Amino acid sequence: MPPRELTLSDLHGSLADPLLDAMTFLNEITSRYPDAISFAPGRPNEELFSHERIPEYLDAYIAYLRNVCGLSHAQVRAALFQYGRTKGQIHDLIAATLVNDEGIHVDPGAVVITVGAQEGMLLTLRALFAGPRDVLLVSSPCYVGITGAARLLDIEVVPVEEGVSGPEAEAVRAAAARARAAGKRPRAFYAVPDCANPSGVSMPLAARHGLLAAAADEDLLIIEDNPYGFFTTQPEPSATLKSLDRDATVIYLGSFAKTCFPGARLGYVLADQRVVRADGSRGLLADELAKIKSMTTVNTPSLSQAVIGGMLVTHNCRLREANSAAISFYRANITTLLGELERHFPPPGRPRLGVRWNTPGGGFFVVVTVPFLADDKALERSAREHGVLWTPMAPFYLGGGGGHQLRLSCSYITRAQVVDGAARLAAFVGAAAGA
Amino acid sequence: MPPRELTLSDLHGSLADPLLDAMTFLNEITSRYPDAISFAPGRPNEELFSHERIPEYLDAYIAYLRNVCGLSHAQVRAALFQYGRTKGQIHDLIAATLVNDEGIHVDPGAVVITVGAQEGMLLTLRALFAGPRDVLLVSSPCYVGITGAARLLDIEVVPVEEGVSGPEAEAVRAAAARARAAGKRPRAFYAVPDCANPSGVSMPLAARHGLLAAAADEDLLIIEDNPYGFFTTQPEPSATLKSLDRDATVIYLGSFAKTCFPGARLGYVLADQRVVRADGSRGLLADELAKIKSMTTVNTPSLSQAVIGGMLVTHNCRLREANSAAISFYRANITTLLGELERHFPPPGRPRLGVRWNTPGGGFFVVVTVPFLADDKALERSAREHGVLWTPMAPFYLGGGGGHQLRLSCSYITRAQVVDGAARLAAFVGAAAGA
Repeated sequence: MPPRELTLSDLHGSLADPLLDAMTFLNEITSRYPDAISFAPGRPNEELFSHERIPEYLDAYIAYLRNVCGLSHAQVRAALFQYGRTKGQIHDLIAATLVNDEGIHVDPGAVVITVGAQEGMLLTLRALFAGPRDVLLVSSPCYVGITGAARLLDIEVVPVEEGVSGPEAEAVRAAAARARAAGKRPRAFYAVPDCANPSGVSMPLAARHGLLAAAADEDLLIIEDNPYGFFTTQPEPSATLKSLDRDATVIYLGSFAKTCFPGARLGYVLADQRVVRADGSRGLLADELAKIKSMTTVNTPSLSQAVIGGMLVTHNCRLREANSAAISFYRANITTLLGELERHFPPPGRPRLGVRWNTPGGGFFVVVTVPFLADDKALERSAREHGVLWTPMAPFYLGGGGGHQLRLSCSYITRAQVVDGAARLAAFVGAAAGA
Repeated sequence: MPPRELTLSDLHGSLADPLLDAMTFLNEITSRYPDAISFAPGRPNEELFSHERIPEYLDAYIAYLRNVCGLSHAQVRAALFQYGRTKGQIHDLIAATLVNDEGIHVDPGAVVITVGAQEGMLLTLRALFAGPRDVLLVSSPCYVGITGAARLLDIEVVPVEEGVSGPEAEAVRAAAARARAAGKRPRAFYAVPDCANPSGVSMPLAARHGLLAAAADEDLLIIEDNPYGFFTTQPEPSATLKSLDRDATVIYLGSFAKTCFPGARLGYVLADQRVVRADGSRGLLADELAKIKSMTTVNTPSLSQAVIGGMLVTHNCRLREANSAAISFYRANITTLLGELERHFPPPGRPRLGVRWNTPGGGFFVVVTVPFLADDKALERSAREHGVLWTPMAPFYLGGGGGHQLRLSCSYITRAQVVDGAARLAAFVGAAAGA
């Protein structure tokens, strides 16, 4: 009998999502032009890592389990080797770190430790979205992880266009009203208020208060995703929505991918919303997320929790200080990138060329608008003829648009590569714009 | 403003599944009776672990990356710390181990490394089930992980009653025909052919061939889940369905939870089915699963892959030999349990009492049938008055039934506890049966 063949169109619809093809193309072109300078990946710089320290972090965590938590040798062994608590085992350390780094005070029982923030998105969406009437509002342009998770669960997504400083309360209110008028139940609004991916921008404080008020009025929950908050160029860290939240409107997604390292795949959800059961008893949304987690990954690998737990213990639950080298690195890179753009496209000629960009206050990303279609064909030309890669923005816009925008990420390359890459990009843009 | 309250009935339907309540009750009663002997958990014995060896396994993996794969120091660092390949990084080691241990020959590109076999179930179901017509057939009584994953994705599940030796081809054929007659598309059949959870039984070789033929005729894929295959009491290992598969009918779920350790949360899917795209080009189902994985956990933690990879390297990709102590332990325990049941319920009086059990050829589980309802109330009485815990079987039966059955697991306790627990169980059964 010939080997079984399946037809892609017979498989789940998410697999035919054009976004996946866009990501595949990006990976493919990156591997075809290994010598190009790539402004594409949003990954953290590897020079900041030292894998020789892994056993040291493990030891620090084991010492914490024995000396602080009072675990016996057999209990330590079980903590590292056995199936574990569904909500995770380093929730106390994470809660302490949130107080120190973000001024977020939360019951450790409201923390669900996940396999990256991505699993947190999946659990949160699965719990909140009960049927076809429920729709998710997302800040647009939007991070692909949340729209992808929604697609897997067949959840309808409604884009809400960002302003120049990120999500705007009035636009969220209007989108919620439109959804309700169409017979839908707008359930939550997803946003990255600090150094967003892909736009790079951060919300001003007043806009944050406005968004919280809008969410309360519209009976929306806010899903706040905060992977880049440490890396603003502002002297003072911004207040997260969760730290401003007084009525459990915000479900907060945390990630250690950029503040510790991505390979641990460690993230978490803070879900301190009360859930009322049929018998009138009350629990935490975190416990409902844990029920779902028992059907996605059972529990988060204890090795990852041990190494990240060891890092937290080593740094006295203060990751902001521990990240001072990373913070300097990313600040220097984005400042350099913005400076180089300014140098290559000086204000006098800029309007003629039709090139402009936003000026995010830190983070990994800058969005450049160009006077030509920044699509896969342009990317191919940019790689082949100018040795520089970037990410087309159109796939991040669910409602269409963004065809003339490209995203530059400066997290994964050195400062010298930022300088060289900006020169290559200027050459490419000049050629493509017919200058 | 008062804290936000959500209503459970407003959340996704999977959260109101009675199975979750059954599991919650089991956990709760276990914590209330800490001194009871528990035949409930299907976890591996911890005495077989040694957490002191983790750095050694890490070192073995790093040496493999450097000396066998030729990676530089920077590349090793990236392998451990950075985001990784979506399908995973130890696929070559896993493919080599499958040849040695199971006689399964597979393209390493068809391996997707997952966060436990549980994530493998989720990815597989999500890829295969496109819409409401698609139904999943499952062997019943059935492992809760697969029915839970189906519930999360709102996939309809059709139970197919097991025979005394596990799944039977004719029952699968009949269920597929009934589903089609009802306008459904039966898409796949899920089974644990070796030492099933919860029934404990293993399929005879002829039944395996019969099932493969039925699947081919009925255009069904088979999802084969094999966590316990090493632990049969047979002198020769059984042939997995995948090793007998000639036409890519079988999607194979592997797990290192019982053969290495559960805390790594490492599993994998072999998906070597061809997928035909709209343009006529062909890829592997594994690559479609990877697309979905990029939206569930992005990639499997590299730390877990490194430690399990190090164990595979250390044991020359032969886990069956490395598990000889575990195999002896589990064989001794289940043999002891069956012997003690025989001793406490000798054949002459057994029919009068109405007690019987199956005799699985190894594994972790035995199913006992009793002449009274083996429900949560009986479990509470068993714990309180006799100091022994077990798992009610009814929640494993989707089509109803199993009310007079209980599952005994003997993996997590010592042989002495098996003996003591069997005596307690006999006392409980005698009292409950009014003997």
